Amino acid sequence: MTFFASRWVEAPKHVRELDSHLLPAGFRAAGVAAGIKPEGLDVGVLVSDQPETVSAARFTTNARVGAPVILSRDAPLDGFRAVAANSGCSNVGDGQRGLETAVAMQAAAAGELGLEPEQVAVASTGLIGVELPREKVVSGVRAACAGLSADADAFSRAILSSDAAPKRACLELELPAGRVRLGAQAKGAGMISPRHATMFCFVQTDAELDAETLDLLTGVCVQRSFDRISVDGQLSTSDTVVALANGASGVRVESESADELALGEALDALLRQLALEIVHDGEGTKRVGRIVVTGRPDAVEPVARSIANSPLVKTALHGADPNFGRILQAAGQVWPPGEPFLVDLEIEGHQVLSAGEVVEPAPAALVSGGEIEYLLTMPGEGGETEVFFSDLSPEYVRFNAEYTS
Amino acid sequence: MTFFASRWVEAPKHVRELDSHLLPAGFRAAGVAAGIKPEGLDVGVLVSDQPETVSAARFTTNARVGAPVILSRDAPLDGFRAVAANSGCSNVGDGQRGLETAVAMQAAAAGELGLEPEQVAVASTGLIGVELPREKVVSGVRAACAGLSADADAFSRAILSSDAAPKRACLELELPAGRVRLGAQAKGAGMISPRHATMFCFVQTDAELDAETLDLLTGVCVQRSFDRISVDGQLSTSDTVVALANGASGVRVESESADELALGEALDALLRQLALEIVHDGEGTKRVGRIVVTGRPDAVEPVARSIANSPLVKTALHGADPNFGRILQAAGQVWPPGEPFLVDLEIEGHQVLSAGEVVEPAPAALVSGGEIEYLLTMPGEGGETEVFFSDLSPEYVRFNAEYTS
Repeated sequence: MTFFASRWVEAPKHVRELDSHLLPAGFRAAGVAAGIKPEGLDVGVLVSDQPETVSAARFTTNARVGAPVILSRDAPLDGFRAVAANSGCSNVGDGQRGLETAVAMQAAAAGELGLEPEQVAVASTGLIGVELPREKVVSGVRAACAGLSADADAFSRAILSSDAAPKRACLELELPAGRVRLGAQAKGAGMISPRHATMFCFVQTDAELDAETLDLLTGVCVQRSFDRISVDGQLSTSDTVVALANGASGVRVESESADELALGEALDALLRQLALEIVHDGEGTKRVGRIVVTGRPDAVEPVARSIANSPLVKTALHGADPNFGRILQAAGQVWPPGEPFLVDLEIEGHQVLSAGEVVEPAPAALVSGGEIEYLLTMPGEGGETEVFFSDLSPEYVRFNAEYTS
Repeated sequence: MTFFASRWVEAPKHVRELDSHLLPAGFRAAGVAAGIKPEGLDVGVLVSDQPETVSAARFTTNARVGAPVILSRDAPLDGFRAVAANSGCSNVGDGQRGLETAVAMQAAAAGELGLEPEQVAVASTGLIGVELPREKVVSGVRAACAGLSADADAFSRAILSSDAAPKRACLELELPAGRVRLGAQAKGAGMISPRHATMFCFVQTDAELDAETLDLLTGVCVQRSFDRISVDGQLSTSDTVVALANGASGVRVESESADELALGEALDALLRQLALEIVHDGEGTKRVGRIVVTGRPDAVEPVARSIANSPLVKTALHGADPNFGRILQAAGQVWPPGEPFLVDLEIEGHQVLSAGEVVEPAPAALVSGGEIEYLLTMPGEGGETEVFFSDLSPEYVRFNAEYTS
């Protein structure tokens, strides 16, 4: 196994890794260079050839969303059969013109693929507030549709923006009912703090599922993966997850069956590893932290987010500094007023604080690896959450100061 | 006038600037090198010689506070006559030992000055989670008490941590009732997002005020100054504001009088300028932004904070990039779900968006100065707020990755 690289994700036993650029049966994809970026692939199309395909989708919860999100989330979310996506421009903040360009992308893909427009999810990523050149993107969609194949390599590259490398996998699953494939292509490196989706993740399986089952699995697994990561605490205007199940394997996954459980385990591991790849690929990231918080149910989420998004915690992580003071400060900042705040803290299994008193500072060597774990036990019972977060580096700042509008 | 350097602060007409290291009548101060820092002044004492002195104070609202805050906020807040402060170590997270050291600092100052311990506010700033050496700080307090004078220079330097220079002023005010002085010494550069106070600001006046009047003025002016700034969105464990009024001028400022109004105007301008100095002195800061948000009353504060604390907005400010997309993204991230989000945006008076549609992008030259103003007009009526914020620079990251525990 090379895909499940994080210590925080265990590959289920019934999962075998295939070449990462492959697709499940009955799916085709393509990516082309349409000239939206100065160079490289920038338009991708993915399609299921099976008419009985079902889908599920999740989008950003930002109140300000791009035209592709406006268009895609208005369609029946269980009825997608294809995705048309581009990088280089997010088509956000361009008003009516941007909406018409998203409609044109969708119509071009539908026309070429013999689908209804609402069967095509559209997604764009890149600069905000500039015009997405309509002719280029439409030509790119048509060219991609003409070049579809069972290989996801070009598609997975065409959706990237500041990513260092494609984020993708194709898995073979031994379900009780038979053998199916599960694939996904994701992208994302900056502006990452998804609440309902990551930047992009397109998931395919050739298992046969009801749309409700696919929606349930997608929702649960997104909550445990892309909803739990933060590069910079910034919720994007364009986050999109689309999952497609086309039944081409002939293997039926019934609701509430052992098959659903096994598929769910694999989807969970797949999306968590992809989410971790996004954090590891955070602009300039050297180290990834995992903060686990237990205690008062209403406090665990704000405390975990406050720690994960603190520039002081993130710079300490970057500098391999086992600084527990900054963890306490970030946690105390959002702890409910009037409640005593006496906590236990472990860093990499080393107990640093007990009931608020220092036991022993963590040695710096403990936090010099690539993945660092913090466990904060707060007053109260029943709440538990985790957030995976990147460090904050001079490279992040330089990149985002220069990545101009 | 050299102190009121920001375009966002107007010096009241009845205010004259004195040498910044001076103090109002009846106040003395000192600063010494006690060896808490590797070099330089690190312990300061300030005292009012007038028995009838009244005070007001504000402290951080972080649930995790340092021993000096625990001790100081338990005392009668209208009864302080002196401040004992140190830099180099914040005395946070050191449990019972830290509390005993704060008590020792307070007792040493009280003993030397002939005061009760609860008449001495204590304040410490610097590293979190390490021991404040008790003998050094107590010796320093005693040495400072032995060297008190009418000059605030050494005191204003002894309270600094990562500040580039002292932040201080001494003003002469022509009130209707007569001439008084108003002075202040502040510090702060990182971990700045005060909700009730800044890192430190010590204010003195030789006007005679009731404690209630001083408390009211202090509260209102802190809300309009230190509560409206953010370097990095991080609420400190040690923020402390102490205001002392000793009546040594013989000029009485009655509640709800023209004198109170004139004193309040001067205090407001003084604290706003000091707050802006803290933002300008944000670790590595090149530019300061002011975001003014109007609209739905419950949304203006979270939207303004989300913009001011967005690393993407802050890096754009650093790069002199008039990137309105990142402003919209940060605002939309916290806008209430379900409400339409169509906004007007002006950058430096240049209308960029009208009802959510691009009018014209701002030219980069507009945002290349030292202070940049953004005006966001959102749906809804009656809410308005502002936040002053620093940019985010590679220097901030380097400094905080290396400033180790």
